[in-house]
Parts: sequence; C-alpha cells; structure tokens
Amino acid sequence: MSAPDPQTLDPKLDLMVEREVGASPQTAWAAWTQPEHVRQWYAPAPGTIADCEIDLRPGGVFRFVPRSPDGVEHRVTCCYLEVQPFERLVWTDALLPGYRPAAAGFFTAVMTLEPRGDLTLCTTVAMHRDEHDRDHHAEMGFYDGWGTVLDQLVTYAPTI
Amino acid sequence: MSAPDPQTLDPKLDLMVEREVGASPQTAWAAWTQPEHVRQWYAPAPGTIADCEIDLRPGGVFRFVPRSPDGVEHRVTCCYLEVQPFERLVWTDALLPGYRPAAAGFFTAVMTLEPRGDLTLCTTVAMHRDEHDRDHHAEMGFYDGWGTVLDQLVTYAPTI
Repeated sequence: MSAPDPQTLDPKLDLMVEREVGASPQTAWAAWTQPEHVRQWYAPAPGTIADCEIDLRPGGVFRFVPRSPDGVEHRVTCCYLEVQPFERLVWTDALLPGYRPAAAGFFTAVMTLEPRGDLTLCTTVAMHRDEHDRDHHAEMGFYDGWGTVLDQLVTYAPTI
Repeated sequence: MSAPDPQTLDPKLDLMVEREVGASPQTAWAAWTQPEHVRQWYAPAPGTIADCEIDLRPGGVFRFVPRSPDGVEHRVTCCYLEVQPFERLVWTDALLPGYRPAAAGFFTAVMTLEPRGDLTLCTTVAMHRDEHDRDHHAEMGFYDGWGTVLDQLVTYAPTI
C-alpha cells in the first residue's frame, strides 16, 4: 500500500500536508529515517534538531529533540508502528517504544511516498482522537511546522 | 522473536499470566485469532462473549463484547500492532483500528506462544503507562479475569 488507508482519513480529525520532492523515494526515505539526515530538516528554522534516535522497526524508537532559537529543548518520544521501506512509515506519540501506552500522546503520523516521474510525492497525515486535539495541533502550528519542515525537506533531499 | 521483548517488561508496570496449553502453537494461535474460537473462552464464565470481530493484521481491529450474566454488554475495541503467526500477537486499546489514538486506552497486551514438547506455553503480558493503571487493572480483576480465561483456554484449545 503506497497511500494512506482511506479508512483512516477523517477531515474532521486529521491534518494533512503534502509536497513533491525532487529526489527518489529511496532518497526521501533516507531523509526521514536516518538521524543524520533528520537533524538537517525536521525542525522549522531557525530552530534545530539537537538530537535524534531511530530504531527503524515496528515497536522501535523515534526520538528527537527540537531546540528553539533561544536554546529551549523539548524531547519528543514516539514509537514506530509500520515500516514499509520507500513507501510508508507510521509512528505515534500515544505509545512509547515497545508499545507501552504513553502518558500524554495525542497523534499518529502516517508518511507515504509515491514516485511521480523524477519526483516523489510525500504525504504526511496526523490523526487525532477528537476535534479538540486536531484543532489544538493546528493551533500549535501544524501547518506552519510540518508545512515548513516539508519545505525544508524539499530543499534538503536533493542534496543527499 | 518468540518471547516478549525483555526491554518492554517492567514488574512495576506490567501484569503477566502464563499457562501450558495441551495443543500445538498453531491450534493455540487459532484459539486467539478466530472469532468463533475467541467467543468460546475469552470471557470468564458465566460471562460470555456476545460478539467478536477480528482483522488480523497490524492496524486491524480486535473488537469483542463481553456480556455479564445479567446481560450487561461492554464493547472493547483494540488495534493489532504485531501479528507473527503461531508466535506473537500484540494489541492495544490505546489506539483504534488504523492506529488513531483512542480516547481512554490504558494497556498494551503481548501474547506469545512457545512449543514445549507436546504442549505450548502461552504467556500474556499487559503493559501500562504507570503504576496507577497497573494497580487499577489488577484491582479490576486482571488475575481473576485473565487467569480465568487462560484456564478456559487450557480447557478449550485441545477440543479444537
């Protein structure tokens, strides 16, 4: 399956951003799944990613530490759920690595890659439990945040 | 991997029950994953399972409806996370099918099967986010409940 499962998409509960990336699905996959690449684009500039840990398997850890321009760091720990190389990556902050329920998670992300000629369509969907969480995520800057980092992915991926 | 990942086990946060079942791993797996079998043993008697729906794949639904002796039904909806036939099954109520965060989930279950000569060791672990949830699950009757249903599995599986 190379696209999000339509059964899981709900406009009232989900947020979506997509971009065409000037690289192959293999390169875009590397950008999403290798810490040295993730650190280059996954925080909206001038913020940075201070650290990134990846254990790329279902149940494995996806941990990253955004650092704001004034030096405030915020550790985010997620658990990978599906790892389909070059096609589909699913993770959530509602579970810790090893699938243990987390104290305060609120989203599941589905990232898919589809070849489009020389480009790759990269689609990210964030799923929430209710409209409150969706709206809160949007107000937190989902479109500015994910929209901006996907713009940064578009710039970065072709340089890999 | 045929046993729970030791990294995920925490005596302060987890509850475990195990039983030797007089059937093959294949038969024990069928008892856990086919609705017509689940309905025969998954509620502590004299309670019953009024309904059961299974879509046996990561992200798929595991829904069951325990009915108490006085007719009260309670729908439980979980999401499968790992499906390794005859070896390991992982599901959680912290996510809905399709991985959407659930409103009020509190456990992830890991069920493993290991051949022991003519028998199969069936181990179930329930993981929680904190000691409060663990203790609450224990007080809800985890050992009576899961202990009893695993006794029922021991009785039922050899009849399949």
